[in-house]
Amino acid sequence: MYVPADATVLITYGGGSAKKSGLIDKVKTVLGNRKVYEFGGIDPNPRYETLVKAVEIVRNENIDFLLAVGGGSVIDGTKFITLASCYKGDPRNLLKFGFMPIPFDVVNKVVPFGTVLTLPATGSEMNSGAVISYEHGKFPVMCELAFPKFSILDPIITFTLPKIQVANGIIDTFVHTTEQYITFPVDARVQDRIAEGILQTLIEIGKTTIAETENYDARANLVWSATMALNGIGGAGVPQDWATHMIGHELTALFGIDHGQTLAIVYPSLLEVRREQKRVKLLQYAKRVWHIESGSEEEKIDLAIRKTREFFESLGVKTRLSQYGIGTDKIPVIIEQLKAHGMTALSETQDLTLDIIQKILERAV
Amino acid sequence: MYVPADATVLITYGGGSAKKSGLIDKVKTVLGNRKVYEFGGIDPNPRYETLVKAVEIVRNENIDFLLAVGGGSVIDGTKFITLASCYKGDPRNLLKFGFMPIPFDVVNKVVPFGTVLTLPATGSEMNSGAVISYEHGKFPVMCELAFPKFSILDPIITFTLPKIQVANGIIDTFVHTTEQYITFPVDARVQDRIAEGILQTLIEIGKTTIAETENYDARANLVWSATMALNGIGGAGVPQDWATHMIGHELTALFGIDHGQTLAIVYPSLLEVRREQKRVKLLQYAKRVWHIESGSEEEKIDLAIRKTREFFESLGVKTRLSQYGIGTDKIPVIIEQLKAHGMTALSETQDLTLDIIQKILERAV
Repeated sequence: MYVPADATVLITYGGGSAKKSGLIDKVKTVLGNRKVYEFGGIDPNPRYETLVKAVEIVRNENIDFLLAVGGGSVIDGTKFITLASCYKGDPRNLLKFGFMPIPFDVVNKVVPFGTVLTLPATGSEMNSGAVISYEHGKFPVMCELAFPKFSILDPIITFTLPKIQVANGIIDTFVHTTEQYITFPVDARVQDRIAEGILQTLIEIGKTTIAETENYDARANLVWSATMALNGIGGAGVPQDWATHMIGHELTALFGIDHGQTLAIVYPSLLEVRREQKRVKLLQYAKRVWHIESGSEEEKIDLAIRKTREFFESLGVKTRLSQYGIGTDKIPVIIEQLKAHGMTALSETQDLTLDIIQKILERAV
Repeated sequence: MYVPADATVLITYGGGSAKKSGLIDKVKTVLGNRKVYEFGGIDPNPRYETLVKAVEIVRNENIDFLLAVGGGSVIDGTKFITLASCYKGDPRNLLKFGFMPIPFDVVNKVVPFGTVLTLPATGSEMNSGAVISYEHGKFPVMCELAFPKFSILDPIITFTLPKIQVANGIIDTFVHTTEQYITFPVDARVQDRIAEGILQTLIEIGKTTIAETENYDARANLVWSATMALNGIGGAGVPQDWATHMIGHELTALFGIDHGQTLAIVYPSLLEVRREQKRVKLLQYAKRVWHIESGSEEEKIDLAIRKTREFFESLGVKTRLSQYGIGTDKIPVIIEQLKAHGMTALSETQDLTLDIIQKILERAV
């Protein structure tokens, strides 16, 4: 147990399923005689306005360890609490750094935290990043001091998850992986093979782990895949294209579509539109992940993209905007939001402009 | 820079090549105004007797950060200094825990350390284990408090390494990977594919990176492979068989054979003798790493083992005891040493007894 024996602990959680399932009580039993406070109600896309209430508790009750019990939103939210609790200025300043790590001269001390993961998806349990919602935007927050001290990954905890959440988690993991892989080649052989290993694993166990909710091995493979997909190991030193996540965030913020679903909508269309920029890696993806050996280059790429879409759909997730009630008429609103949030030069080469994103969205209807 | 601005730093290094090459001076320049001490002469297999002298310096000069500049031996030795410096009792006690992590009630405080890696091989730069020589034995030392705070991996630093050290490093990395992979299957799909990814990478870049000493991409792939091979990521939750390392350690202690060379001697013969216990994974290894598709199961396994030996030899490393001047007559001495060090039930199933090791060594002559 890495929670100091004399720590005053704040357990953070979300909408209440961790409470109802008895997990919070189990965690409290393990914490034994430590003084424990609870903070529930962290939102599915954790909101600044909620989190600052927890910061008040941390300060007022002299909390010296945070324990996040939940999925990516609870963990992301707890990272923000971790950072904001020792920060003297307006906590909204911490939302201003984007993908730049918050420098040590802004935050150099934090309240440490651990996690008990309930939902394999975001990988937040083994990285130092978070996405925080404030007003109508989603803001990345990165800081090396925001790594969890430990994370407990127990596949059995995931047995009771709703199927749609498992499906969303598989897609989130898949797209995290491809966003660090389907870019352009830089001779990063181990990183590529880690990505291909995660993708093949997801394809192999995806449908099974949704159908067989208590299949331990399938869930264990999913949990480890999700954690490995965004812990910095496979992404070390390689170009990255987070455009799908950025566009997806706006779809969630505007229309309340689940994060995993937004990725399933955007990604296949993005690959179609960006096939030239991603040609070499798309061919590698076709060969090594989907084992496509025959056909012309164009046919291989087409088939790989089609199989990607079909994989998402095989998990019960729709991949078209129109299936979520969003028509072509909403595209200008999405573009406006992206513009408002400065998302005007995305991708691994920063040349994904708003007019290209418009084409991607048109294809995604 | 993660070395505190007001730290008093002890730079640790080995036989002097880091000094002669000017690397130590470069490191001192980066350390700027910090007070810096140096401790050179850490042995190729770091000796307890040497390391305790550094512990004295740490205590007497109030060192609060250690910086290891070297390969696995220097880093391993520095881990021991890290642990022993704050330990009140006889430092030899720290050698008694074997593969059990040293408990927090024995060591709960350390002098933090970072590394500048010069030799890709042991993976020590991203794990918390060390091997320390004392009298005629090699002792594993494991402690979660012995993780480096950072490691700087610059492929360019490796350009000036002697070819034999690069070859040894490739073999060490290869065998670290297989020892966590060629065991028995537990449906750990991502871990398996990480292992297969590292092995394929080594096979692809091995000869090139020895022949082309300044091939940046080849060296970068080697450095990252070595680090990934023993950082706990691919080995999470899978059976492990460290018998080759344990037998190899005795060969180094008795005959002074390089660590990498001992692995090249022992491993092919171990696979031959243990083919039944490792059958399923050997077939997977044959298929996924060596792309062997045709032949009977026995033929596939034979070919995979032969290709493994040929790969080691293609790097310029001999794989037979007799090629190092060791004949069958020395086998009883090796067995006695293993017995004296309690190595009587090795492998992933703890059933590799001394009589089986004898067969392995006989085959290895």
